[in-house]
Amino acid sequence: MRFGFPSLDNIRSMDDFVLSYDKRNRVANWVFEHINKESVQKNPAVDRSKCEFYEDKSVHEFFRSTNADYKGSGYDRGHMAAAGNHRINQQHCDQTFVLSNMAPQVGKGFNRDSWNRLEMHVRKLTHFYRNVYVCTGPLYLPKLEADGKSYIKYQVIGKNNVAVPTHFFKVIVMESDNQKLDMEAYVMPNAVIKDDTPLNVFQVPPESIERAAGLLFFDKISRSKLNKINGRWA
Amino acid sequence: MRFGFPSLDNIRSMDDFVLSYDKRNRVANWVFEHINKESVQKNPAVDRSKCEFYEDKSVHEFFRSTNADYKGSGYDRGHMAAAGNHRINQQHCDQTFVLSNMAPQVGKGFNRDSWNRLEMHVRKLTHFYRNVYVCTGPLYLPKLEADGKSYIKYQVIGKNNVAVPTHFFKVIVMESDNQKLDMEAYVMPNAVIKDDTPLNVFQVPPESIERAAGLLFFDKISRSKLNKINGRWA
Repeated sequence: MRFGFPSLDNIRSMDDFVLSYDKRNRVANWVFEHINKESVQKNPAVDRSKCEFYEDKSVHEFFRSTNADYKGSGYDRGHMAAAGNHRINQQHCDQTFVLSNMAPQVGKGFNRDSWNRLEMHVRKLTHFYRNVYVCTGPLYLPKLEADGKSYIKYQVIGKNNVAVPTHFFKVIVMESDNQKLDMEAYVMPNAVIKDDTPLNVFQVPPESIERAAGLLFFDKISRSKLNKINGRWA
Repeated sequence: MRFGFPSLDNIRSMDDFVLSYDKRNRVANWVFEHINKESVQKNPAVDRSKCEFYEDKSVHEFFRSTNADYKGSGYDRGHMAAAGNHRINQQHCDQTFVLSNMAPQVGKGFNRDSWNRLEMHVRKLTHFYRNVYVCTGPLYLPKLEADGKSYIKYQVIGKNNVAVPTHFFKVIVMESDNQKLDMEAYVMPNAVIKDDTPLNVFQVPPESIERAAGLLFFDKISRSKLNKINGRWA
């Protein structure tokens, strides 16, 4: 976390990622990963199909999401820290299946498709950069309604009222061999997205995610020190 | 805070109260006060009308609510830590007017009426108990809609999208001279309430607030150690 913590609320450190848990919404505030070419390699001994979703017993039972909350909801248990980023070690992979690393995601058309495309894009960045730091989390974005007022509205599922985020974000910092830093920032709606939609459609100024999420990303890096943001010279 | 902190997120300590700020919603998570008969006395030298609502500059500007956010919204800037609890010292009273201690409240019929009745009730408890500890905050409660699903929905106001909570809570622990502890817990809707509604209508099991708020109140007191909860033997 050498570039700063997005917030200090309710931190959980796993072997290969860190998360901050939102006890009110029963999903993470953010999940932080550091990956590189070596760490995302596929180890044939690691079997994702052996992984099982499990409750985070470190979360007080009042605030803990359960498999029963998701069951029959119509939503996938969507990974924040991607399982595919943690395949060199079975335990690392297993830990990504903790329910505090999950959020209710639209399955077909989102979690299994465009969100997965974004996760693959992040992994691919490790081919071009030495270090990739990625912060992932939910958003609850307001919408202007017919009465002229703005409302935040989101579904909650299960007995524990697990929040269904309206959107998800990824903010990524990439460090090149010569220590130059680039940043990319994405917001995707938790909805069916056409598979041929280019990922750069979802790029947004990182500030807009910070304001909406109540978080500051990589705040130890002065933004003027960044080389490129979303592929453009900053 | 001898009976425990409700959460450790983003704490601000004022001279006479403590608050945790919710950077996403731009209102407090909770505000904590310790009052007694002496501390709530009216000092004629303290003039509430001299108090002015002011921005909390300790909050990053991305997450800070402003007077402009409230202006024209139709909502009052409603105190979490009540101004009336901090009248022996002008500076204490002034500090309750910091905008991080405010939430958008329905004015007539709520903030100026039934919510004020609840605040007066809390102050009155200091006549019967040596120490009164009160934790106040917003709630965003889900509602079952016609489609059979539960949704959390709340308005946001101003350029900074300040959340308008659906409800507010107060959880109070009272310590008697012989160190017996009683508890009361209230939830009121952020709506016009008839003035003749008895306050005990709004009493709820403290657990229900904890689950909804994502907080644990007075968690250093085993609940079985409490003498009465909401006036009933626990």
